Amino acid sequence: MYKINPTTSNELSRVQEKITKELASEKIIQDIYEYIFQSKGKKTRALIALLASQSKKLKPLKRIELASIIELLHTATLVHDDVVDQSKLRRGEKSVNQVWNNSYSVLMGDFIYSKAFMLMMKLDRPAILKELASATNDIARGEIIQLNLFENYLHLDLDDLLKVSYLKTGRLFEAAAKTGAMLADSSEADVKSFGLLGKTLGIAFQIQDDILDYESLHINTGKPALQDFQEGKITFPLYFAMQNAQPKDKEFLLKHLGSEKISQIHQAKIYKLIQSEASQKATKTLLKKYINEAHKYLESLKNHACYNEMLNLITVSTTRKI
Amino acid sequence: MYKINPTTSNELSRVQEKITKELASEKIIQDIYEYIFQSKGKKTRALIALLASQSKKLKPLKRIELASIIELLHTATLVHDDVVDQSKLRRGEKSVNQVWNNSYSVLMGDFIYSKAFMLMMKLDRPAILKELASATNDIARGEIIQLNLFENYLHLDLDDLLKVSYLKTGRLFEAAAKTGAMLADSSEADVKSFGLLGKTLGIAFQIQDDILDYESLHINTGKPALQDFQEGKITFPLYFAMQNAQPKDKEFLLKHLGSEKISQIHQAKIYKLIQSEASQKATKTLLKKYINEAHKYLESLKNHACYNEMLNLITVSTTRKI
Repeated sequence: MYKINPTTSNELSRVQEKITKELASEKIIQDIYEYIFQSKGKKTRALIALLASQSKKLKPLKRIELASIIELLHTATLVHDDVVDQSKLRRGEKSVNQVWNNSYSVLMGDFIYSKAFMLMMKLDRPAILKELASATNDIARGEIIQLNLFENYLHLDLDDLLKVSYLKTGRLFEAAAKTGAMLADSSEADVKSFGLLGKTLGIAFQIQDDILDYESLHINTGKPALQDFQEGKITFPLYFAMQNAQPKDKEFLLKHLGSEKISQIHQAKIYKLIQSEASQKATKTLLKKYINEAHKYLESLKNHACYNEMLNLITVSTTRKI
Repeated sequence: MYKINPTTSNELSRVQEKITKELASEKIIQDIYEYIFQSKGKKTRALIALLASQSKKLKPLKRIELASIIELLHTATLVHDDVVDQSKLRRGEKSVNQVWNNSYSVLMGDFIYSKAFMLMMKLDRPAILKELASATNDIARGEIIQLNLFENYLHLDLDDLLKVSYLKTGRLFEAAAKTGAMLADSSEADVKSFGLLGKTLGIAFQIQDDILDYESLHINTGKPALQDFQEGKITFPLYFAMQNAQPKDKEFLLKHLGSEKISQIHQAKIYKLIQSEASQKATKTLLKKYINEAHKYLESLKNHACYNEMLNLITVSTTRKI
């Protein structure tokens, strides 16, 4: 999906190998573990760590270890998210809680989290471990705030949504970029720029993700149509649609938000309201703002080996259809 | 509950203070966090870390930090266990999943886990962090094996039950004792003895826990009566009862194992079967075996400052009624 150099592509394959090589002696754990990692995902966060850690002085092995740790942390959050969201599908396949059940999802998430921390210990870089522990904590914090916000959505504002997008998505992008740069012993200024690049790219990535939820009716994004809406999630397009809607339309949206079943007629109306010109324009403007910021931070890394690949990553992440 | 020196008692209070001082800026997180830690629990694992780390050379502060980390890790597993077991009560209070819901429990567990890892980073002792990351992974592993075993209980044997008891309970007792000794820069031999003491004490603690599940009808243990049985858990007393039961009685037990509602007449019969002389004798013999082992390892630590308190801890842990 990403246009990346053959070298980076090879490194991403090694991340997949490294992750799937983490064996457990018990068949049941191995079965679930293999099930989770058979679908490879985009590995955007791992890719960011690989790019930010490019350096002539550093051998690929350590970088692949770091990228694998970040991919494991991300996967653990997904496995737990499936319980939180009661999702039936993940990356186009049945989620763990569907094939096994919620109990297995909770415990496999914990298993993968702690495996990531074990691998971090091997990395032997305390500052990196500190950043990743703090990012993991922030992700959980962001998800709790999100749950709570959606229960009080009448008081929700744009800053709340941005905070949640940063914590639940931007934070791990930021940590991936920062720890990549830290691993390569980059200057303090570069570590900072990579962090801000990751953060803004992550928020842009989340906005694009939110947009895709309302395009699923028309194109195959790998996500079921209206998933976010049916899970009761207030995302950017919905937020802007409600800001701009007539009172009776806003009432209609709130009435169906979080419904498990929505008739085709109502689905069409929801799409129409959310894809209104005003909503689309506001969402795209916000997306553009974060893309521009990401570009700005990348410009200060113009001499870095990953410049072109990172430039491409920004474009692809924010125009992707899956 | 434990007869401990005033100094240790004061240290345990400081663990409680340290844990509850970990503030989050968001009200919802603070609310759930305070709810979880308002009930103080026995803090057996924290106590073990405090005892094993006693040393003239070491200031209390670091020891209280370590004990707090271990208590946080333990609490995170409890919060997730409540989702796994669909428990309604924890330490006599409604569990988080009852007051809020499963989603909050999953995410608060993650929040507390990662908070523990953040505090570990401050401790700045890589070998301790490594041991605790590995223990956390083993706990999740033990719980997954347990879930899977209970789905295949006809093939379950005593070694399986012992393995699960070690991983889900003994492992953190072991880590608490080992890391306590490591923090105090004890000799390698002492760290090893403390580890084995913790491990055997933890398994004995779990056996006593299993016994208590079948005493709840008669005494107030703080746990609802027959909780393990109704959750479908095969514990030591049940295992031995089934080993010794007539085929029709075994069938009766298996028929009701995991049932949500059991009539009073059936409850009485279950108690009678499980508290049969043969079952009680086998369970007590096994408990005695692990108590003896714990004493054996403690004997090699006879000159350690914590000797008397640890001796008392073994007695109390394995005769406790709550």
